[in-house]
Amino acid sequence: MRIKLSLAYDGTDFCGWQRQGHMETKSVQEVLEGALSQFYNQRIVVSASGRTDAGVHALAQICHFDVDATEEKLRSRDICWALAGILPTSISVRKAWLAPKEFHSTLSATHKTYKYLIYNHKRSNPILRRTSYWKRQPLDLAHLQESAKFLLGEHDFASFKTAGTDVTSTTRTILAAEWRRKTRNMLEFTVTGEGFLKQMVRNIVGTSMHLEKNGRDPGEMKAIIEARDRRAAGPSAPPEGLFLYRVYYPPELERLCRPL
Amino acid sequence: MRIKLSLAYDGTDFCGWQRQGHMETKSVQEVLEGALSQFYNQRIVVSASGRTDAGVHALAQICHFDVDATEEKLRSRDICWALAGILPTSISVRKAWLAPKEFHSTLSATHKTYKYLIYNHKRSNPILRRTSYWKRQPLDLAHLQESAKFLLGEHDFASFKTAGTDVTSTTRTILAAEWRRKTRNMLEFTVTGEGFLKQMVRNIVGTSMHLEKNGRDPGEMKAIIEARDRRAAGPSAPPEGLFLYRVYYPPELERLCRPL
Repeated sequence: MRIKLSLAYDGTDFCGWQRQGHMETKSVQEVLEGALSQFYNQRIVVSASGRTDAGVHALAQICHFDVDATEEKLRSRDICWALAGILPTSISVRKAWLAPKEFHSTLSATHKTYKYLIYNHKRSNPILRRTSYWKRQPLDLAHLQESAKFLLGEHDFASFKTAGTDVTSTTRTILAAEWRRKTRNMLEFTVTGEGFLKQMVRNIVGTSMHLEKNGRDPGEMKAIIEARDRRAAGPSAPPEGLFLYRVYYPPELERLCRPL
Repeated sequence: MRIKLSLAYDGTDFCGWQRQGHMETKSVQEVLEGALSQFYNQRIVVSASGRTDAGVHALAQICHFDVDATEEKLRSRDICWALAGILPTSISVRKAWLAPKEFHSTLSATHKTYKYLIYNHKRSNPILRRTSYWKRQPLDLAHLQESAKFLLGEHDFASFKTAGTDVTSTTRTILAAEWRRKTRNMLEFTVTGEGFLKQMVRNIVGTSMHLEKNGRDPGEMKAIIEARDRRAAGPSAPPEGLFLYRVYYPPELERLCRPL
């Protein structure tokens, strides 16, 4: 049977989603696989919609795995509740479904939404420090909103590709990108795309802040994209502000997933 | 010169406000005193409006200390910014003032506001786990609101006194106490009083939830208070949901505090 899970995690204490044998900190994947293998008493290997980097959070990461068990057996226990007793509190399985064989968390995903939170206040806030980026200088929301417009549509985003990554194409389509003031001192960037390069969202956020901070025209975002050169863009924003917010699948495939 | 500070801290990793020689974890007080002593290059001893227990947070704890320096010297550097470089990110000095000699963070305080956050959802949320209490069963907000009314006014709150504490009087005056739905899955209890017994807010919150959960009449809160017996009340709610939100001082004294 194939099972689909929706996961939330605080990325602070992880080296990211993917298993990395040499890291001192654990990956979300290995901790989750350990818990599932223990729960089902068999070796479980998990795939996710995509990797999240070290320190990046997820509110609804989607993953799937296959398990050798009957539906009746699987339905005999509340897997989310049972896993809550095995997993650390930094990971929570929020929902579980029985998925059809053709469902694949990575390959079936059509688009994703990320959010980036910036705590924009003169003084840091310890309560928010793990789950937002603290920016001391006041940010001009209108400027950020203006530069975000140039991200929309299909572009070669080579300028936002992190050096050292090797992908065949750096062309991606951004469906929505907007900044808003979430609360008085919290700015939120929400971006939806069919796919993202490694660190692309953090590179976009860092570049947007860089343009704003240096009094550059928001329209320079267009030139930066057209340069197709990482050196044309600004620095990467730190991971603690980034959240994988939602992963989308074809509705007809979603309908075939039955809550467990 | 006397200095007044407003502090925010994430209480998760501390044994509470007060220095406790025997604890493995540090207190907010000793970490702050260490940073201030280093910054001013003299031994600094700090008093706060009151102690917070292990794991309890503060958004605006008020404290004060005396330092041997001229006003000119004190004004030559941004103390909040300088301390940000010395203190761990779990503590932030949000504001600083030059205070008159008659200002005393403990003795001058007239009343305080605490907030208690409950994440009320079937599944836990790793992002909120350090700064709210996760309650799985749905809570009836109207029931909580109803029982809170009986807290208002001057009462002997011996029923909410944590065993083992020794105070001369357990009579306190509650000025405001209300529950509201802060966001879809977050309930917030706000209580303002002239003073609180140790763990009083957590005992009130735990008792309110206990009455709700067991289908008891909200009016039983009145009987519990009148019993003046800790055994009549419910369990204490855990510390991660509690925040010291604001400390009030006489306006004429506040006016004498000049921003540093």
